[in-house]
Amino acid sequence: MKNLGILISGRGSNFEAIARNVASGKIPARIVAVISNRAEARGLELAREMGLNARFIPSKGRPRDDFEGELRETLETLQTDLICLAGFMRVLSPEFVKQFPNRILNIHPSLLPAFPGMDAQKQALEHGVKMTGCTVHLVNEGVDSGPIVLQAAVPVLDEDTVETLSARILEQEHRIYPEAVRLLAEDRIQIDGRRVLLKKDSI
Amino acid sequence: MKNLGILISGRGSNFEAIARNVASGKIPARIVAVISNRAEARGLELAREMGLNARFIPSKGRPRDDFEGELRETLETLQTDLICLAGFMRVLSPEFVKQFPNRILNIHPSLLPAFPGMDAQKQALEHGVKMTGCTVHLVNEGVDSGPIVLQAAVPVLDEDTVETLSARILEQEHRIYPEAVRLLAEDRIQIDGRRVLLKKDSI
Repeated sequence: MKNLGILISGRGSNFEAIARNVASGKIPARIVAVISNRAEARGLELAREMGLNARFIPSKGRPRDDFEGELRETLETLQTDLICLAGFMRVLSPEFVKQFPNRILNIHPSLLPAFPGMDAQKQALEHGVKMTGCTVHLVNEGVDSGPIVLQAAVPVLDEDTVETLSARILEQEHRIYPEAVRLLAEDRIQIDGRRVLLKKDSI
Repeated sequence: MKNLGILISGRGSNFEAIARNVASGKIPARIVAVISNRAEARGLELAREMGLNARFIPSKGRPRDDFEGELRETLETLQTDLICLAGFMRVLSPEFVKQFPNRILNIHPSLLPAFPGMDAQKQALEHGVKMTGCTVHLVNEGVDSGPIVLQAAVPVLDEDTVETLSARILEQEHRIYPEAVRLLAEDRIQIDGRRVLLKKDSI
C-alpha cells in the first residue's frame, strides 16, 4: 500500500474525489496527510471530519526554504510515497521537486501544453477554442510542463462563461485525477522520455 | 449558393470529403475550382473524374507574387466566396489573405493552439499528450493562428505511431471540415474577437 500526501490551499474538491476513491477501495493506498498552507482551507475541515491527519503548515510571511523544509520533513516522516497537489496555490521549488522525482502529481484545467499557468479556463475561452479539458501530470521543475498521465477533453459551448466551463471541466477532473492516482499507486506506469505509458505486464 | 474554391497540393482527402458533401446536398454550395500548385496532385485527377473545374497553377521556381496573382485572378474571375485549403502546402502571404478576409478555411491536425506548424501528429506523440485532435480555422496572417470554427478531440494510444495517430485524426478531419464549410456556406457564424459563434437566429 502506497502512502499518499495531499496538498491543498482551499476547498480541495479534487482531494475529496481522491479521498472517496481511497475510502471505497478503488485506490489501493492510504492518505497519511492532508496538508494546507492556509489555515482557513475548507479542505482541512473536511479532512478532519473524515478522520484524516490534517495539518496546517503556514507559508505566508515565511522564507520559502523554511516552508518547504517543514513540508518535506512532514512528508518524509510519514513515509509519503506519492504527493497529490489538489488546488495547492504555491509553486514548489526545483529543489523540493527533485526530492520526489516522478512522485508528485498535479491537475491542470486545460489540455496541456495549451493554456498553462493561471486562469486556464479564461485563457481557453478568450482564445476561442471549441475543445479544452484537463490534464493530470507529474510535476517537474517547470510550470505545468511535466509528463502527462491522463487527459480528458471537454467541449466549449457558445454560451459558456468561465464559471460554466470551469464546472464542466471540474467534473472530468474528479474522474481522471483519482484514476491517475490509482495507476501510480498500483505502480502501473512507466516513463519513456516525455511519454507516460502503461507497463505492458500490467494490462 | 456560395462558390467554393479548393486548394490542394496532393491527394486532398479533405477535398474529397467536402466534394462528397456538396454532391449529396449537405453543403449548399458549388465547387467552382479545384486548384493545385503541383501538376501531379492526385486530387486534380479526382476532380476531373468528378467533372469539376480542375486547374494547375504552378508555384515552383516562380516569384510568389506571380503565383498568388494568378491564383487570386482565377478565384476572383470565378466569383469564389469561400476558399478551402485541403493539404495545400504553401503558406499564403498576408497580402493574399487580406484579399479574402474571413473567407479562407484551413484544417490542422492538432487541437490548436497546441502543436502548430509541420508534423503536428509527431509533435503531439513526442510531447506525450493523451488527447489531441484537429482544428478547422479561418486563415489570418499568422501560421495556424486564426479564429477556430470547429475542433474534434482524438485520444492518443500507448501503441500509436505517427501513422496510426494520423489516420485516427484524419477520420475526424473528414467529419468536421465539411461541417465547418456548411456553417460558412449557410452564413451561420459570427466572429466576436477570437471567438467564432453560431448566429443566434440561425439555430
